[in-house]
Amino acid sequence: MSSSTTVRKLEVVSPVPADIDIANSVEPVHISEIAKDLNLSPNHYDLYGKYKAKISVSCHYSVWLKTDLDAQVLLSVLDELQGSQDGYYVVVGGITPTPLGEGKSTTTVGLCQALGAFLDKKVVTCVRQPSQGPTFGIKGGAAGGGYSQVIPMDEFNLHLTGDIHAITAANNLLAAAIDTRIFHESTQSDKALFNRLCPPNKEGKRSFSDVMFRRLKKLGISKTNPDDLTPEEVNKFARLDIDPNSITWRRVMDINDRFLRKITIGQGPDEKGMVRETAFDISVASEIMAVLALTTSLADMRERLGKMVIGNSKSGDPVTADDLGVGGALTVLMKDAIHPTLMQTLEGTPVLVHAGPFANIAHGNSSIVADKIALKLVGPGGFVVTEAGFGADIGAEKFMNIKCRYSGLTPQCAIIVATVRALKMHGGGPAVVAGKPLDHAYLTENVALVEAGCVNMARHISNTKSYGVNVVVAINKFSTDTEAELNAVRSAALAAGAYDAVICSHHAHGGKGAVDLGIAVQKACENVTQPLKFLYPLDLSIKEKIEAIAKSYGASGVEYSEQAEKQIEMYSKQGFSGLPICMAKTQYSFSDNAAAKGAPSGFVLPIRDVRASIGAGFIYPLVGTMSTMPGLPTRPCFYDIDIDTTTGKVTGLS
Amino acid sequence: MSSSTTVRKLEVVSPVPADIDIANSVEPVHISEIAKDLNLSPNHYDLYGKYKAKISVSCHYSVWLKTDLDAQVLLSVLDELQGSQDGYYVVVGGITPTPLGEGKSTTTVGLCQALGAFLDKKVVTCVRQPSQGPTFGIKGGAAGGGYSQVIPMDEFNLHLTGDIHAITAANNLLAAAIDTRIFHESTQSDKALFNRLCPPNKEGKRSFSDVMFRRLKKLGISKTNPDDLTPEEVNKFARLDIDPNSITWRRVMDINDRFLRKITIGQGPDEKGMVRETAFDISVASEIMAVLALTTSLADMRERLGKMVIGNSKSGDPVTADDLGVGGALTVLMKDAIHPTLMQTLEGTPVLVHAGPFANIAHGNSSIVADKIALKLVGPGGFVVTEAGFGADIGAEKFMNIKCRYSGLTPQCAIIVATVRALKMHGGGPAVVAGKPLDHAYLTENVALVEAGCVNMARHISNTKSYGVNVVVAINKFSTDTEAELNAVRSAALAAGAYDAVICSHHAHGGKGAVDLGIAVQKACENVTQPLKFLYPLDLSIKEKIEAIAKSYGASGVEYSEQAEKQIEMYSKQGFSGLPICMAKTQYSFSDNAAAKGAPSGFVLPIRDVRASIGAGFIYPLVGTMSTMPGLPTRPCFYDIDIDTTTGKVTGLS
Repeated sequence: MSSSTTVRKLEVVSPVPADIDIANSVEPVHISEIAKDLNLSPNHYDLYGKYKAKISVSCHYSVWLKTDLDAQVLLSVLDELQGSQDGYYVVVGGITPTPLGEGKSTTTVGLCQALGAFLDKKVVTCVRQPSQGPTFGIKGGAAGGGYSQVIPMDEFNLHLTGDIHAITAANNLLAAAIDTRIFHESTQSDKALFNRLCPPNKEGKRSFSDVMFRRLKKLGISKTNPDDLTPEEVNKFARLDIDPNSITWRRVMDINDRFLRKITIGQGPDEKGMVRETAFDISVASEIMAVLALTTSLADMRERLGKMVIGNSKSGDPVTADDLGVGGALTVLMKDAIHPTLMQTLEGTPVLVHAGPFANIAHGNSSIVADKIALKLVGPGGFVVTEAGFGADIGAEKFMNIKCRYSGLTPQCAIIVATVRALKMHGGGPAVVAGKPLDHAYLTENVALVEAGCVNMARHISNTKSYGVNVVVAINKFSTDTEAELNAVRSAALAAGAYDAVICSHHAHGGKGAVDLGIAVQKACENVTQPLKFLYPLDLSIKEKIEAIAKSYGASGVEYSEQAEKQIEMYSKQGFSGLPICMAKTQYSFSDNAAAKGAPSGFVLPIRDVRASIGAGFIYPLVGTMSTMPGLPTRPCFYDIDIDTTTGKVTGLS
Repeated sequence: MSSSTTVRKLEVVSPVPADIDIANSVEPVHISEIAKDLNLSPNHYDLYGKYKAKISVSCHYSVWLKTDLDAQVLLSVLDELQGSQDGYYVVVGGITPTPLGEGKSTTTVGLCQALGAFLDKKVVTCVRQPSQGPTFGIKGGAAGGGYSQVIPMDEFNLHLTGDIHAITAANNLLAAAIDTRIFHESTQSDKALFNRLCPPNKEGKRSFSDVMFRRLKKLGISKTNPDDLTPEEVNKFARLDIDPNSITWRRVMDINDRFLRKITIGQGPDEKGMVRETAFDISVASEIMAVLALTTSLADMRERLGKMVIGNSKSGDPVTADDLGVGGALTVLMKDAIHPTLMQTLEGTPVLVHAGPFANIAHGNSSIVADKIALKLVGPGGFVVTEAGFGADIGAEKFMNIKCRYSGLTPQCAIIVATVRALKMHGGGPAVVAGKPLDHAYLTENVALVEAGCVNMARHISNTKSYGVNVVVAINKFSTDTEAELNAVRSAALAAGAYDAVICSHHAHGGKGAVDLGIAVQKACENVTQPLKFLYPLDLSIKEKIEAIAKSYGASGVEYSEQAEKQIEMYSKQGFSGLPICMAKTQYSFSDNAAAKGAPSGFVLPIRDVRASIGAGFIYPLVGTMSTMPGLPTRPCFYDIDIDTTTGKVTGLS
């Protein structure tokens, strides 16, 4: 049994009750207990209620007030633990999923419950904050499921500690700054514009604000007194001359609102006909979410937010948030969001929740700072299990080539979650549709169908193995699976080169159901033989990098739209070709065609458009048509969600 | 000196430093100390960091887990203190302000610092949460100013505890539900629609979700089994048949984004040409903000959110949030927002921050629950000072006729904040423009100009007095004011019927500068001679109520647009004519014309449109053209806002 003081025993019942009922049946311990068990002192975190705490990445403002450190001061856990050694680093990916999901989050949580509550290991689970859009739409929550969940489940799924709200606010402040600046430039002379940007004070003296010096530096102007600028310099400084057609920055909302996918703004009489077509994305698709996930410190975040490119000037120069004077304000809006949120699993093991981009339209991994803090907290022999989004083709690929490249961290083991259900689909089973009852084929034994589908798993295994990590397949058992089917998956996984393949039942039994998986993961971590290998070096051209990834999908080639060609040429000219690539591709197939199951090959991958997230640090090709704003079904989840007003208990969250 | 354990002495310097520098020069005490001083125990609140705590209005979810009450359980402070007596209730309003503001928040905070830190009274300050829009736009923060501020000032102005973000999320979830529902109804038969709304489960049985029974009840259908509905009942139940032109519900954002004042949505190919013209308002203008401000309990909030009307069916019936099935989900999104946030002043007295609608476009008062909790906490002989927005013509009027009507609370004293600067403007001084240097007239003595402007103050005094409260004028002293000018204001105030008029310097000296004001307020509270009188009874017609308010503005009559006539007729037909009136009018004049200073009269008040906030509980006439979405200037405040990345210190917030 575990030496942890917060671990608690689960009493499991069968059949497995609804997720919310399980979550509500367990009384969480006060989060300060979880923190204590991680050797965190109260000046390492801020409480957000009784079950959530933000772990300090950077020192908190009140530190500057005092010379001595006391409980009022939030210390940077990262700075403090700089010297100490990391634990094992495990990433969880999956095979190409059905629309129902194959239990990747559930396996991530279940494995940690096994390691922490049954194998007496120091362990931290690193997961992404769910978007509220799907929570009220089709998908429901994302806290795991069955007896492997993060709790309190309602606090996990709603608001959390406000990080996504902060991203929405920052993203949209920048958007407002863009359109308003274009508007004001269109109605003012250089002189008037400059006078407003650098107004004289009471004594008639002008000055530049700090953020203005970033633009001056970019323009090669070293003067510090606004009055010294020549008319040409005034023009260069004050007039961003943004080309409205070049703007890639869109507004965001953490809601599934399909009617905002394409809109026209500026139709009010005061905006004098300066209408423009644009769109809203879901908040987790914001570049600011990617910045949060990939940043390494407050100072680094300030730089990344300031250099985000929103579009070009009419002469083709990239225009940044700092050019608009808003980089500092964006950082202020994000200053609390940089601290990961500590929560707990059903069995009382610690969880860090941070960042939460979708893996199909973004890079889909939780944050670097959360993983780094966790690796120090568990220390040598301990385990950090972090989740990558969707299939290993996108989630794990981006984890390796983008996240690990920026963090410098090296995983020892990659888990690929597989289910009999999904493999049957890849073997040719009928379509699986959310909200519709499952076809008979998925409820009765059909070993041949399973075996036929294992080609999908095999490619995920070999792709992931090629990074130099040991791959362990977690076979997430459903009640309808038969032993023959499960064994078929196991043999196929080993045949495809998996280090091990383990049948687990953490959904039905919690950590107890993932003990064998935990043991396999430990062995895999202790027996790494190769260094981390990336799929492509950064010094390749944008196209070469896209093609390297396309090849890993099984594509025979890549086809670029005119728009994509134009963008690639522009970004290369602007000097951004050295960035890694973040493909926006469907999670339902290796290819761009969601209907192509199994392991398709020989197809040509269409690149419809290419965007750049310069602040986050990647080039962002759109493979086929990818929606960045989900919609609501006829009967959204919200029909079932309510609150018991006498107890405050949330009902109907799934 | 005070018996409070948290009160601290201020060392004031002259000239008064920048607000943020003063705020940052004081180390706040841990908020649990402030709570303790109010006799709150840890199970009455949740910590949000070290300097903010949410005071529990309703019991917290974990209560239902246990029969015994322990620290895991959040108790309802309101329920617990039900029996105990209230303290004195003081509302702060102002004369018609200049665009620079006359220090209403500053006076509210300064008075409380005087009562708590110098007059040894139990006191709680109740203020509104500021909108982030103006914080990054023109106005800057709203924590008070000089040596009378709420701290930490940056936490007060940014995010706070997420209430406005929750309102934005809830408002926009409802908006998405409206357009998506119209879309789905347009593409589906009654039967298909009904099948999707009440899908059969594995056993083929259908059921209604709880929220659906609200609609069934409204339709007079008492059946509980979906299969029993007749085709006509299916049609009535499943088809809301919303008239797109009748939709008054708009999306919101807590950003000054003028380009969203008028937009066209639904232009994506998947939306099949179902385009619609709509707009974004700033979040604080959302009806949900008004619901939060006017609600009295979690159960009451659930009802109000469910009955919010978003528009009409094509046959003219109001369509509610519960008709759309989303009332419960909205309440879940708002479940934490209902708890007021406890903070502190520079001198360590307690502050409750809650709700924050603008008084020009909404009712502009902080929440009923915050005031109620505060009145119980201070108890008999204690003081609750609550702020009403802008001039007494709108802020105090709505406080009396809307807020007090719903809360049943009775104020003893109303403070009207006046400045020599604003009175000079009303006397005919040159225009005062934000961001532009003040005209000479405002910096040198001109008693005649001040006296000429006192007609504005006089009308605010007599209007406010007519509610039956004692009116105390707080003359907020600026360094450029002369004694003769200040005395002129004082005499004019007394002549106009003020109970007292006090010159105060809390901006320069903190509570010490408002001690005389505190003494005057205490006398005023102890010597109330009349009961509370409303300006109009609810059983008047909508027009009669509008006209009663217009008369108090000095108007000779009211002129209704065709649209306004149409809306009034509709709301009357729908049975909503018994609600109080919430005028949306400029704060810069008694009239609809912001340029008409002093005490204009004989004008005809134009009602451009009339809307209804049925959930919040008021009818909402638009007087002239009122923008519900501010814009950004050429050089927004955000140019100065940044963060010191080594200390985390926020800079440039004003």
